[in-house]
Amino acid sequence: MNIGLDISYIGTNYSGWQVQPNKTTIQGELEKALKKVFCKDISTTASGRTDAGVSAYCQVVNFHAETNIPVDRLVYVINEHLPKDIRVLRTYKVAEDFNARYSAKKKTYEYYFYFGDVENAILSEHSLFVRGSLDIDTMKKACKKLQGEWDFSSFCASDTEVENKVRTIYDIDIVECDRGYKLVVTGNGFLYNMVRIIMGTMIDVGFGKYSIEDISRILEAKDRCKAGHTAPPTGLTLLKVQY
Amino acid sequence: MNIGLDISYIGTNYSGWQVQPNKTTIQGELEKALKKVFCKDISTTASGRTDAGVSAYCQVVNFHAETNIPVDRLVYVINEHLPKDIRVLRTYKVAEDFNARYSAKKKTYEYYFYFGDVENAILSEHSLFVRGSLDIDTMKKACKKLQGEWDFSSFCASDTEVENKVRTIYDIDIVECDRGYKLVVTGNGFLYNMVRIIMGTMIDVGFGKYSIEDISRILEAKDRCKAGHTAPPTGLTLLKVQY
Repeated sequence: MNIGLDISYIGTNYSGWQVQPNKTTIQGELEKALKKVFCKDISTTASGRTDAGVSAYCQVVNFHAETNIPVDRLVYVINEHLPKDIRVLRTYKVAEDFNARYSAKKKTYEYYFYFGDVENAILSEHSLFVRGSLDIDTMKKACKKLQGEWDFSSFCASDTEVENKVRTIYDIDIVECDRGYKLVVTGNGFLYNMVRIIMGTMIDVGFGKYSIEDISRILEAKDRCKAGHTAPPTGLTLLKVQY
Repeated sequence: MNIGLDISYIGTNYSGWQVQPNKTTIQGELEKALKKVFCKDISTTASGRTDAGVSAYCQVVNFHAETNIPVDRLVYVINEHLPKDIRVLRTYKVAEDFNARYSAKKKTYEYYFYFGDVENAILSEHSLFVRGSLDIDTMKKACKKLQGEWDFSSFCASDTEVENKVRTIYDIDIVECDRGYKLVVTGNGFLYNMVRIIMGTMIDVGFGKYSIEDISRILEAKDRCKAGHTAPPTGLTLLKVQY
């Protein structure tokens, strides 16, 4: 049976999603829990890897296994074997050809940030603190330049092996939230570090280092060196995946 | 000089505000930092103690010290000696007779919670997870019964030494927020565990264990045993203090 699983996690204490030797990863913890439940090795596929320190409000995963436990009850059984900062949200039967990675149509990421003279301990836990004053209005306009289908080479870590760097951003915006702001971006897929480079570039826009028009020029250049810095993983959350 | 200091902290890793032998407390960490800055022992007064695990978005403190550093720059110097989960927000000169505890007029606490069948790792970090379904509308009406000046003996930990248990709640409500709810309560002061017992009792209301009218009866009883359970510290934050 092909089983779908929605999972939430706080990335802070993990070396990212993907299993790596001698590192504690979210996939590693999940597969350890699944081994206890199914008494055999289970390999999982996620909609995409998240970097070290990146959290997920709802990541989607699938794996193949047989069980007599009703699928919708598996969520409780698996959670018993997971640390508190990783929580399965739902388990359900999916079509045999469903693949959490290749079947994904849209992903939405959120990057939380706030700015000012001094940090607040509560905000800084999951939100990037930017010292100084940001021009949010210009940042909002600048990020809209990324909407559409583009070659995002300028917004991709230079050591990526992926050949095709064309992706579509369906929606992107910077919105005010309770005590700060968040960059919310929905796309058909994201390149390595893409959201973090977009965020870093938008912070540079907020400081006046780049203009709104510069964003189109950066896209056209297809050169990582033209875009801004890579913002740290703190603040980044995979919000949802759509199929 | 009498110096006022606004401070934020995440309570998770501390045994509460107050200095205690062999325990790591927020006051302990702050006084250690002040000793480094002023090269002498400094004793601090906060608007009130927060329990183990309780956070503060903006707690207010005062202490007496002499320095050549401009008062508004002290915030940066003190932060250099504090752990990341404790951040001073502001330092300023206050009147000689200002006392962060006795001069306080109003305090506002927030208690974050959410409910459902399964926990979400991100939400559970600083929000209480309640398994099941809560009747928020009835909880909203019930909490309003606590507004006003009352003897809050029923909502105070039974081992409290305080004689006068009359307090005024200026405003109390349960409001929907991003991904859950928060109980927000403003009063002239709070008894030991008072907000946590109010929250626990409101959860019992949400499950139908108490009716809206029961809340007035619980108040009149002046008996801790009549109110609901004490909700855990997770989810509780001191939002602000007014003078």
